Amino acid sequence: MGTKRMGKQTIRLESRPVILASASVGGKQESKGPLAASFDYLSEDTYFGAKTWESAESAMLKKCFDLSLQKAAIQADTLDYIFSGDLLNQCVGSAFGIKDSNVPHFGLYGACSTMAESLSLAAMTIDGGFANTVCALTSSHFCSAERQFRLPLNYGGLRPPTAQWTATAAGSLILSAEGEGPVVTHVTTGKIVDAGVTDANNMGAAMAPAALETLCTHFADTGRTPDYYDIIATGDLCEVGSAILRELSSLNGYDLSSNHNDCGLLIYDRGKKDIAAGGSGCGCGASVLAGYFLPKLRSGEIKRLLFAATGALMSPTTTLQGESILGICHAVAIENLGGAC
Amino acid sequence: MGTKRMGKQTIRLESRPVILASASVGGKQESKGPLAASFDYLSEDTYFGAKTWESAESAMLKKCFDLSLQKAAIQADTLDYIFSGDLLNQCVGSAFGIKDSNVPHFGLYGACSTMAESLSLAAMTIDGGFANTVCALTSSHFCSAERQFRLPLNYGGLRPPTAQWTATAAGSLILSAEGEGPVVTHVTTGKIVDAGVTDANNMGAAMAPAALETLCTHFADTGRTPDYYDIIATGDLCEVGSAILRELSSLNGYDLSSNHNDCGLLIYDRGKKDIAAGGSGCGCGASVLAGYFLPKLRSGEIKRLLFAATGALMSPTTTLQGESILGICHAVAIENLGGAC
Repeated sequence: MGTKRMGKQTIRLESRPVILASASVGGKQESKGPLAASFDYLSEDTYFGAKTWESAESAMLKKCFDLSLQKAAIQADTLDYIFSGDLLNQCVGSAFGIKDSNVPHFGLYGACSTMAESLSLAAMTIDGGFANTVCALTSSHFCSAERQFRLPLNYGGLRPPTAQWTATAAGSLILSAEGEGPVVTHVTTGKIVDAGVTDANNMGAAMAPAALETLCTHFADTGRTPDYYDIIATGDLCEVGSAILRELSSLNGYDLSSNHNDCGLLIYDRGKKDIAAGGSGCGCGASVLAGYFLPKLRSGEIKRLLFAATGALMSPTTTLQGESILGICHAVAIENLGGAC
Repeated sequence: MGTKRMGKQTIRLESRPVILASASVGGKQESKGPLAASFDYLSEDTYFGAKTWESAESAMLKKCFDLSLQKAAIQADTLDYIFSGDLLNQCVGSAFGIKDSNVPHFGLYGACSTMAESLSLAAMTIDGGFANTVCALTSSHFCSAERQFRLPLNYGGLRPPTAQWTATAAGSLILSAEGEGPVVTHVTTGKIVDAGVTDANNMGAAMAPAALETLCTHFADTGRTPDYYDIIATGDLCEVGSAILRELSSLNGYDLSSNHNDCGLLIYDRGKKDIAAGGSGCGCGASVLAGYFLPKLRSGEIKRLLFAATGALMSPTTTLQGESILGICHAVAIENLGGAC
């Protein structure tokens, strides 16, 4: 038992679960960003045809889920499990989004690390022999998140330069035991790291120590060095957190300067004032992975990606109570082992 | 691949992961109930030594986690993973409760089904060869839940007879690939069921159709009939939901009249007005499983338990928006395959 373990917290998936297809959906702000062309669907209607911000998020997630099934050329009833979660209280974004799917469901909460968490568990469920086909998906919506975590939009609250812009986006991945596509080879599951940061407008700083912990452990567990990967993509440390991560990594003997990027830095035009330090939200990393990185892995443009999504574990209540913002980071190694696939 | 599957949504765990130890912690109301003697620790201080309801919940969960490690005679660093979640916004109850454990963490959200969800994934992670030792835990706290889902306690709001009392309780299970104890043999993962119920004071009715769906599927998938089990324990359908489940099951050809019980009906003295229809909250099913049923399985008093925890997937926001309360139910078969163990 436990034979798939490598080192302290990494597992090797020898059956190499395949990412058959992926889809991403975005909103208005995303359609103006540099990755606009990477989305499968962009909506000018922030409500996605729904009546509330919360049901808009569910409608967006459902659209993304449907598109990923379409791209994988399967029906929902082929799926053995869905792993999903989101930022909304009680994860209602994804629960209402997939309520009519009729697929066994595991609900997750990993804040902005949710795509790495759902991808980890989806791949493990296939590698463990429990499933043939599994969906990993997540979303976030700027308007539902702002209302819940900060201020109602109508207040027009100002944002400090360290703040991050919650993406209105969703990402959905279909994994399978068979087929063609990039494969999941390793999973390094993160521990909760309390760096003592209490500023809810500086999530990057709160999460960077968790990213450091998981990345260093991944390298130690696998014997790999950062240059094994074409890209090490964190999400979403943005400007502040990324700088901290690179500096701390270097102090720990791991040079990330040539191949580190961050989903929160990629998704928006950095010149825009509102965007501040960059993008965030479960949907940011998920849509950048699904729409931007996975097609590059599929075409062979990149061969090895370490996707390391970070989450800030806090609620507005704990922040008001003076608690620190806990960080977590899960890393998933995704590789193209053949040519274009 | 997928070789462990039986029927539509059930898996068979052939390695039979062992529940090495379990612990339960409760509060004041629980100490007055009929299961008081089954708790490992009962606190007369509703704050558990903390300053806020939210940190009280975390302190209670940590106490329970520590007790389960003690009973399993292991240190936290033996654990390969923790699967946990709770009812609080962004699942801060469990995140802050285990933040110093230094164990890789998967955060879950399954509302009151969380113990069955975490137990399912913990057992699968061991059976899949990814881990040797895993912890499944969850909690709920009456005061943090009331404030978040209904009204601040100070308002003294009246409760209708269909309402359920959120348990101040936690349950923690330590699972292992080896050792002595009851074993997890089958997992039936639930789908989200929308029965159209919109009354947040009648969770039992909202969740009963999900329990029906999962139980009927479990029986069909495994070829078992309800009488295979000494006890079929749902949690938490309480008075209203249990009556609905038994009637609908009977219409579907499954007679639950002799061996069905519900954690929400067991935990409190039913004569008390405040308790209304019974107990609920992630901690209700978790503590009844950990403190009441598992010792019976361990001693051989019962041999076969089907633990089917139900969750209501909703938030106060979705309820105010007129959305229905979605239900989900995960079932886990736990058996004593030897004598006393």
